[in-house]
Amino acid sequence: MADSVKLYGTVLSAYVSRAKMALNLKGIKYENIEEDLSNKSTDLLKYNPVHKKVPVLVHNGKPISESLVIVEYIDDAWKGVPILPQDPYQRAVARFLAKFIDEKCVPAIKAVGTNGDDHQAIAEACAQLQVLENELKVKGTKFFGGDNIGLVDIAADFIAYWHGIREEAAGVTFFTKDKFPKLTKWADDFVNCQAVKNTLPPREQMLGFYMKFFGKVNGM
Amino acid sequence: MADSVKLYGTVLSAYVSRAKMALNLKGIKYENIEEDLSNKSTDLLKYNPVHKKVPVLVHNGKPISESLVIVEYIDDAWKGVPILPQDPYQRAVARFLAKFIDEKCVPAIKAVGTNGDDHQAIAEACAQLQVLENELKVKGTKFFGGDNIGLVDIAADFIAYWHGIREEAAGVTFFTKDKFPKLTKWADDFVNCQAVKNTLPPREQMLGFYMKFFGKVNGM
Repeated sequence: MADSVKLYGTVLSAYVSRAKMALNLKGIKYENIEEDLSNKSTDLLKYNPVHKKVPVLVHNGKPISESLVIVEYIDDAWKGVPILPQDPYQRAVARFLAKFIDEKCVPAIKAVGTNGDDHQAIAEACAQLQVLENELKVKGTKFFGGDNIGLVDIAADFIAYWHGIREEAAGVTFFTKDKFPKLTKWADDFVNCQAVKNTLPPREQMLGFYMKFFGKVNGM
Repeated sequence: MADSVKLYGTVLSAYVSRAKMALNLKGIKYENIEEDLSNKSTDLLKYNPVHKKVPVLVHNGKPISESLVIVEYIDDAWKGVPILPQDPYQRAVARFLAKFIDEKCVPAIKAVGTNGDDHQAIAEACAQLQVLENELKVKGTKFFGGDNIGLVDIAADFIAYWHGIREEAAGVTFFTKDKFPKLTKWADDFVNCQAVKNTLPPREQMLGFYMKFFGKVNGM
């Protein structure tokens, strides 16, 4: 029986794109199922009853949720280009940074533009981004994963692509070449990777979404 | 050169105990370094500059932070009893549940007793615990890990031990045999495991801590 691989997601989600990037890296063909989050499918609710969120990967009928768990699963279940480092210590460092991105860095940068005290929010976001800037500086490699993208690069996809569009919509700019020379260069290289490109939502569509989002937040 | 394994932690922390349990399961000897969190050591600040938190495992001079990252590292770096399942899908399920425990379940049960609206907080906590109750029911095994404890059991250590003491201090009880027959039985079995027992803080000391905590919260 041929492998059945389905991905439930939405085109705008940076979390869903993570799963798509991992599938692309391994060269896995999959069926992409676009969810309407305002009217979730019975399949999505059945496959992810705990969170009721995308992405959900369904491999031969078995569902896996949570984007980073999906990325690790894809790395475990399929051979080919490794996504996590092979060395246990480097694996731990990658997992630590991926968790840091999800729990500290992205929430800090998402806090900018959504409340009045932007000065403090920007300082906090920059402090978190500096951790990643330093990491790239110390490693001296093109990607967090080395010569090729890996778990941390995939985890940081929001910073590489979505964040810039969000800055434009919010009218706030702090992720600059001056402040973050390594990280902005990394972002350029990352979005141009073959495995990444076709997973990204069209810029205009994403910008429209954020314009509406900030319009709502600011009561426009 | 013999392996150097140091663990920076505090005896009261359920997160630190996770690392100790994993080390015990693998039979690894380690130096336990008790931190004073009100006056953190320069070592701790050096080894975990991002979060400045315990636990930190230092293996041959290399630091690893974040309790679940440490547990996975220990499983990756040392042979012996496996902590994560070998099957990729079961590994993903274990990682999903461990993440659920940290992000949804434990925060929900910690919210009980810290604000006035306990009725709603208890309902929410019970809904999250029910996910774990159902998981044990479906699996039909003694532990989440099967016959032996694994990643999910270790991740749920707060529920097995700390939570009951917290309930006593807060004067609120909802984690009962009636409501959660499988999960309360699991908790009893878990705290009696050889690898778990000696990692748990003394009951009286923990109770004292929580009595003080709730006294403070309630303005006593």
